[in-house]
Amino acid sequence: MNIPTVKNLKRVVIIGSGFAGLQVAKKLRRDKFQVILIDKNNYHTFQPLLYQVATAGLEPDSIAHSIRNIIKKTKNFFFRLAIVHYINTEKQKIYTNVGYLFYDYLIMATGSITNYFGNKNIENFAFPMKSIPEALDLRSLILQDFESALLTKDFKERKRLMTFVIVGGGPTGVELAGALAEMKKYILPNDYPDLDIQYMNIHLLQASKRLLDGMSEKSAKQAYNNLKELGVIIWLNCLVKDYDGKIVFIEKNKEIESANVIWAAGVKGSIIKGFLKEDIKNNRILVDDYFKVKKYENIFAIGDVAYINTNKLYPNGYPMTAQPAIQQGNWLAKNFNYLSDQKMIKPFIYKNLGSMATIGRNKAVCDFPYFKLKGFLAWIVWMFVHLVSLVGFRNRAIALTNWIIQYFNYNKSVRLIIRPFRRKKKLFKN
Amino acid sequence: MNIPTVKNLKRVVIIGSGFAGLQVAKKLRRDKFQVILIDKNNYHTFQPLLYQVATAGLEPDSIAHSIRNIIKKTKNFFFRLAIVHYINTEKQKIYTNVGYLFYDYLIMATGSITNYFGNKNIENFAFPMKSIPEALDLRSLILQDFESALLTKDFKERKRLMTFVIVGGGPTGVELAGALAEMKKYILPNDYPDLDIQYMNIHLLQASKRLLDGMSEKSAKQAYNNLKELGVIIWLNCLVKDYDGKIVFIEKNKEIESANVIWAAGVKGSIIKGFLKEDIKNNRILVDDYFKVKKYENIFAIGDVAYINTNKLYPNGYPMTAQPAIQQGNWLAKNFNYLSDQKMIKPFIYKNLGSMATIGRNKAVCDFPYFKLKGFLAWIVWMFVHLVSLVGFRNRAIALTNWIIQYFNYNKSVRLIIRPFRRKKKLFKN
Repeated sequence: MNIPTVKNLKRVVIIGSGFAGLQVAKKLRRDKFQVILIDKNNYHTFQPLLYQVATAGLEPDSIAHSIRNIIKKTKNFFFRLAIVHYINTEKQKIYTNVGYLFYDYLIMATGSITNYFGNKNIENFAFPMKSIPEALDLRSLILQDFESALLTKDFKERKRLMTFVIVGGGPTGVELAGALAEMKKYILPNDYPDLDIQYMNIHLLQASKRLLDGMSEKSAKQAYNNLKELGVIIWLNCLVKDYDGKIVFIEKNKEIESANVIWAAGVKGSIIKGFLKEDIKNNRILVDDYFKVKKYENIFAIGDVAYINTNKLYPNGYPMTAQPAIQQGNWLAKNFNYLSDQKMIKPFIYKNLGSMATIGRNKAVCDFPYFKLKGFLAWIVWMFVHLVSLVGFRNRAIALTNWIIQYFNYNKSVRLIIRPFRRKKKLFKN
Repeated sequence: MNIPTVKNLKRVVIIGSGFAGLQVAKKLRRDKFQVILIDKNNYHTFQPLLYQVATAGLEPDSIAHSIRNIIKKTKNFFFRLAIVHYINTEKQKIYTNVGYLFYDYLIMATGSITNYFGNKNIENFAFPMKSIPEALDLRSLILQDFESALLTKDFKERKRLMTFVIVGGGPTGVELAGALAEMKKYILPNDYPDLDIQYMNIHLLQASKRLLDGMSEKSAKQAYNNLKELGVIIWLNCLVKDYDGKIVFIEKNKEIESANVIWAAGVKGSIIKGFLKEDIKNNRILVDDYFKVKKYENIFAIGDVAYINTNKLYPNGYPMTAQPAIQQGNWLAKNFNYLSDQKMIKPFIYKNLGSMATIGRNKAVCDFPYFKLKGFLAWIVWMFVHLVSLVGFRNRAIALTNWIIQYFNYNKSVRLIIRPFRRKKKLFKN
């Protein structure tokens, strides 16, 4: 790969420009290290708002930010748009689709991918929502389904096209269900006056006994009630067994006929080939308190892909969300900078800042370390936190403009099928 | 197709929801006619700003508006997302990809498509910019080319990737050239500090002896000078003979090596199968002053696809731009409404409201019937006219927010490769 080498400067290669990778890349001292960031996209994705792209609330430009724009005019910093295929940890060599490169230090910030738990049918027929193209496909699909429902004279088929099954009752599932329910309430009856919108059903399926497992019992209950009020059909203690593109098969011989299953039931670390079996635990890369992968002196992992089991509050590793990723990226950069100053590095201490989920208009739940919020106030806090977390003034301005307009006209205006989703291709894939 | 028939109400089918089709659909009295609008997209495209989508200035949601959102809550109005394959004018039957339907009156508002003048090579290798997906592909392509230029060690290849050839010196070509030149000036040097941006070249090729053929000599001269100042290489009296994906072949054995040829050199009417040879003239449907296709009593054509040669000022038909389309849609709706009231219908009178083009920051030219403008004032007028012409408050608010931010930070923030453009597919098509 075409990158100059700088004498006396160690090269740090970061793979992945999510919350963790971007943070460490920004904070590393570039007078002490040559920093190379590799990602398969030329933008950073603000994943917590993907569901708004899928439900026609925002265009990608509000939640994506060009990496080159974030890092412009900085010395010793190189971004390369590439897909990493393999890492040779012995030769310290990274192989990509556009050539290879060497590293002195490697930071794995590759994030996570959708986990179908080995079910090939679900992988083929259900829709993931982990990236912007996937969210855009989902947006197209929802709109195409309503156009198709309008054309068919087969009542069963029409109902199936208008039935949405969201698997997974975490924040993503809850927020998506809420957004779909609001589309049903405010938008689709106007858009499709010749369709009987009462046949639109939104099911939310959760494997455990309550929604929002990572949040407090109280907030979970509140979210449950809010979704119920919006007409979402919630299934608890409900394990999905299979899906054939038309019918969702649930334990105890239950079934839901649906053309649209959205899989928000799990993620797993996105691990690149080249690591040993012992480096990996629970589908993530096992690291110590300093984010170092045990067997190597110069390989680190942070964010979703990193498995740290030293904190007793998080025996199964830190949550695979934005907060731990940002804190870890920040911490690792500091340790690198300490190292370059010959100072002592410090073991990671996680500071739980709380968690939140929005259910819809004026409705959200927030769990903070010392207090909880619900309803309108929680919703305002949710919006504020998400707004300031977006990268760059422009993204914030565009998202805010959209939200204000949507709030007052009860509308989601990005109901555009720009690239129709070809369901058949997916169906015939296997 | 699943559409109810209403007794005693004549059915008007409009094909195409561009400027002309949308206008007639909105203005037709729906207590007198059942109105059915068919389009292959579920949105109306504001084509004059497509070049801003292609150059990372705006996301599609600013220039596209959901048709169902425009026409919501109106009686006797049906929108169907469909591609029309064939019209049986005898049986008054329209065949589409999702079934057939009958009409009492048919209004052809199918617009225009890119005209490659029969050159298959150019059709395969050059990039059109007539639709939102095409504009998005172009955006991806421009950004991908710079990423590729960074990776290659072949100097000739790098130069080719950084050379842009725009064929056609009309408003589209001029505005696109200006936007690319501004990217070169303000954005790309920051984004790609390790690339030598001086090798980026923008060529604008015009077949006739001056730019902006439809505008005044004075404005054309002004645009020419402004583009020159921005570093655009302008070729006048220049006919493109061929393009093989790498080299543009020009008359008199001249050549330009370029991986990116954007074809803005011409359009032709988008005519659906089923019309007779005598119905068509100059690749458009020949109609009279009342937009009626001569041979039929119940078929009309408006906008780009309509050829009206009765106005002596426009012996080759009206310009294929937004203004005539809007006026014709409006006029035809009025005639239909007169008809339903048993009033006399009136022959079309075109009112030239002027034309304009922007070259870049603070630079535009406007020709109005009684005066001309250039420079900053023209630019303000250009922005105002385009802003108020966008459909809906939200589109205007989002576009304006973007423009204000871009103006102050000299930035175009939608530099996102959401769906990489696969050049090879195109190359291997034939």
